[in-house]
Amino acid sequence: MPLVTTTDPTTGESRELDFSESDAAEVRAAVDRAVEATADLDARGRLGRAELLDAIADALEARRVDIVAAADSETALGETRLNGELTRTTYQLRFFGEVLREGSYLEATIDHAGDTPMGPRPDLRRMLLPLGPVAVYAASNFPLAFSVAGGDTAAALAAGCGVVVKAHPAHPATSDLVGRIVQSVAGNALSVVYGREAGIMLVTEPAIRAAGFTGSPGGGRALADLAAARPEPIPFYGELGSLNPVIVSPEAARTRATEIGTGLSASIVLGGGQFCTKPGIVLVPDNSDGEQLVRVLARDASLTAAKPALTTAMAHAYAAGVDALAGETGATLAVEARDAADGATSPTVVAFDGDEFTGALLEECFGPVAVVARYRDDAHAARLLESLPASLTGSLFVDEDDRGVPLARKVVAAKSGRILYNQYPTGVAVSWAQNHGGSWPSTNSVHTSVGATSIRRFLRPVAWQNAPQTELPEELRDAYEAVPRRVDGRLVLPAE
Amino acid sequence: MPLVTTTDPTTGESRELDFSESDAAEVRAAVDRAVEATADLDARGRLGRAELLDAIADALEARRVDIVAAADSETALGETRLNGELTRTTYQLRFFGEVLREGSYLEATIDHAGDTPMGPRPDLRRMLLPLGPVAVYAASNFPLAFSVAGGDTAAALAAGCGVVVKAHPAHPATSDLVGRIVQSVAGNALSVVYGREAGIMLVTEPAIRAAGFTGSPGGGRALADLAAARPEPIPFYGELGSLNPVIVSPEAARTRATEIGTGLSASIVLGGGQFCTKPGIVLVPDNSDGEQLVRVLARDASLTAAKPALTTAMAHAYAAGVDALAGETGATLAVEARDAADGATSPTVVAFDGDEFTGALLEECFGPVAVVARYRDDAHAARLLESLPASLTGSLFVDEDDRGVPLARKVVAAKSGRILYNQYPTGVAVSWAQNHGGSWPSTNSVHTSVGATSIRRFLRPVAWQNAPQTELPEELRDAYEAVPRRVDGRLVLPAE
Repeated sequence: MPLVTTTDPTTGESRELDFSESDAAEVRAAVDRAVEATADLDARGRLGRAELLDAIADALEARRVDIVAAADSETALGETRLNGELTRTTYQLRFFGEVLREGSYLEATIDHAGDTPMGPRPDLRRMLLPLGPVAVYAASNFPLAFSVAGGDTAAALAAGCGVVVKAHPAHPATSDLVGRIVQSVAGNALSVVYGREAGIMLVTEPAIRAAGFTGSPGGGRALADLAAARPEPIPFYGELGSLNPVIVSPEAARTRATEIGTGLSASIVLGGGQFCTKPGIVLVPDNSDGEQLVRVLARDASLTAAKPALTTAMAHAYAAGVDALAGETGATLAVEARDAADGATSPTVVAFDGDEFTGALLEECFGPVAVVARYRDDAHAARLLESLPASLTGSLFVDEDDRGVPLARKVVAAKSGRILYNQYPTGVAVSWAQNHGGSWPSTNSVHTSVGATSIRRFLRPVAWQNAPQTELPEELRDAYEAVPRRVDGRLVLPAE
Repeated sequence: MPLVTTTDPTTGESRELDFSESDAAEVRAAVDRAVEATADLDARGRLGRAELLDAIADALEARRVDIVAAADSETALGETRLNGELTRTTYQLRFFGEVLREGSYLEATIDHAGDTPMGPRPDLRRMLLPLGPVAVYAASNFPLAFSVAGGDTAAALAAGCGVVVKAHPAHPATSDLVGRIVQSVAGNALSVVYGREAGIMLVTEPAIRAAGFTGSPGGGRALADLAAARPEPIPFYGELGSLNPVIVSPEAARTRATEIGTGLSASIVLGGGQFCTKPGIVLVPDNSDGEQLVRVLARDASLTAAKPALTTAMAHAYAAGVDALAGETGATLAVEARDAADGATSPTVVAFDGDEFTGALLEECFGPVAVVARYRDDAHAARLLESLPASLTGSLFVDEDDRGVPLARKVVAAKSGRILYNQYPTGVAVSWAQNHGGSWPSTNSVHTSVGATSIRRFLRPVAWQNAPQTELPEELRDAYEAVPRRVDGRLVLPAE
């Protein structure tokens, strides 16, 4: 197999690393390790896995300087951002530890034997168990938080599933470093494989029981199709693409045009526009307030320096995407990208006049570009939004008791996995209530890929009928009281 | 389109009904009604939908005599069984009403704005919302409880999703009657379509957001593949096929051979063996205790009268399946099927000696047949069980502190969605803790299709960020306290 290469996006220089892409035997060996690890993780129990997640977080923190340096040299995202991202990564691991300790995620349920209108009911007890080894496809744009030790990995390990990560080719050295650090405390619980072919093999490995993916709709769909076509299909949890519409009501534009224009620009250019939650479509009223907002947005965007994209290929795709957007009927360039070094991207704003989005306007363009569409009235805005696919987020800039765009608000709410009021969608908090998901193409799942409930993706329910106490997982035994449980229909909390 | 025909399985006589198979326009119209109904069901709210489920149950009870008569004339399952099944059906509807009133299923979660090690966190609130219109593919073997007003329909309506049922061709008159009764109280919330083509169209209709299916692996896989190949893939929840292994330990065979032989025979012949949880594979020790158990099982099975199968085609498939089983290497007929009228099935027992199941021994044979396999020791039993696909259930007949078959027990536990101790798997209680699911081919899902949590299949998470109180669903407002909620990480129960 060819050696893995890494490229510095600032200089465009590539060099070979001292390991090669994974061949079939290596992928198989990684899966075998994940099978073994799944048994080990199960044997550790909830509390043991919580400790393991803490230990992984500690080990990553101990190597913070090295990790940030490796990631910066491969992504050019900068030390500030990458330090923040590592903090997010270790917070996420520890947060899942907290979720394990709390124990609700088990959905422990006990129905004692009894009579029902259907006849006698046996003793039934239900709990969620690890699904089995999980394949994780790392994202390019979060080399730490959505990569080797990122959200999908943390959720799978928390669930008790061994993990094989398919590294993203945009940061292989970072992946290798993080992989080794995780292995130093978690052993076989995590392996990393490299190369496109390895990724394809991985999703078809019989022992792999689920896959998590963050990336493009094209790549995600291809892997999802492979997962669905297996002799034994497995769940594929893909986070694919999102336009993240924003609508500013006439009232909000009247009172806050400058503030919103500045805020939107900052959100659009953040991280080089390389976020899955970047506001890609901005609807503003077709009046002088809307024009003021666009003026500020355009000014701020045009004052933002060009930045290296994550890869040269992504910079080229960005340029092509912007050209395609500007070439659509009804679209014009409001802020033109300035000349940037090869591999860099410069903020762009495309203005659109029309009654629905079509063609390139329906495709996510990864990078610092936004489409601004002027709407004449609520019905027009609703029609525009109806023509969009579903998104991870939808943002409403509206005032209190604002009745300006009721139809459009309904459309945004129906098509978004997270509905924001007067805030910007970039930045995805890791918490109990977070949802990072949504209808196709934002995800192909009815689950979140960020936050406490993302663990549910890697668990399966099992029921025990008429089981002796000694045969039950401890959380389902009568005497156990340390997790919330539903007993005979009633939710019972642990004694404080 | 051709008229729909119904057949009396006792006489084999067919007649035309006064309606035809559904054409494309009718399928589309049914889906349109389900779209409208989804909005209506949402507007009713949780408590309104609970009342609706109760009203449907009342309406079905009011027509009990007619429904049972219609179902008996199409399935020959008998009045006792069908009365029990209708009771189960109405109990299930009312039980889902109870689940709605309790409200945990919403997973209502509130994270107030605050500081975290990741930085400030905005106010985030999460809840599950209806996924959208659901297609339900009815099963042949439960003309009431897994058909038009069955479990999938009850779960989808509870979730707030309009339903289009693809009727099973084995009981169209029953489907029509039950459909009309449900519509008399629920209006457009449920439509019924007829014919194979209608079923194929339904799963590819853009507005359909999920499908529930109970039936054969072949039919289920074909529909699952269509669901996965859509431009916007949707979740397909299939309950497909299950061998339901049973293992009797040497100790249990020694102390209870006669009792277990009789119990197993009753479970195998129940309902003509036409249950997805019928024990299809029975492992007994290869000694005189095992022989005694098989003798009793064979005697009881051979004393059981032949019964009409649900359809003549199923009776023929049964005969072919038994022939294929008996023709496998190592398999012999222990109890031969007696001559039965065309369309009827008679209990059969196939004995197997060998080291793994292959060929027809891995296929579910629908009807009153069981494969008995004699195991020499624990390792042999484990090897036999390892060669089986995953099942909805696995049953262990073991005594207290029974250390006879530790390896085999582990295999059963790992491959079963419900693990039973000293009980028979037929009979699936509807309750909070039930799980009717399992790894492929028993289902293709990490969810149950029976019991409280089956509602989760038809829900999607949504988060609100920084939303004014008035914009939130009432269950997420600060002042609301009538459902269990997680607030800032802590589970809070309603005041009693």
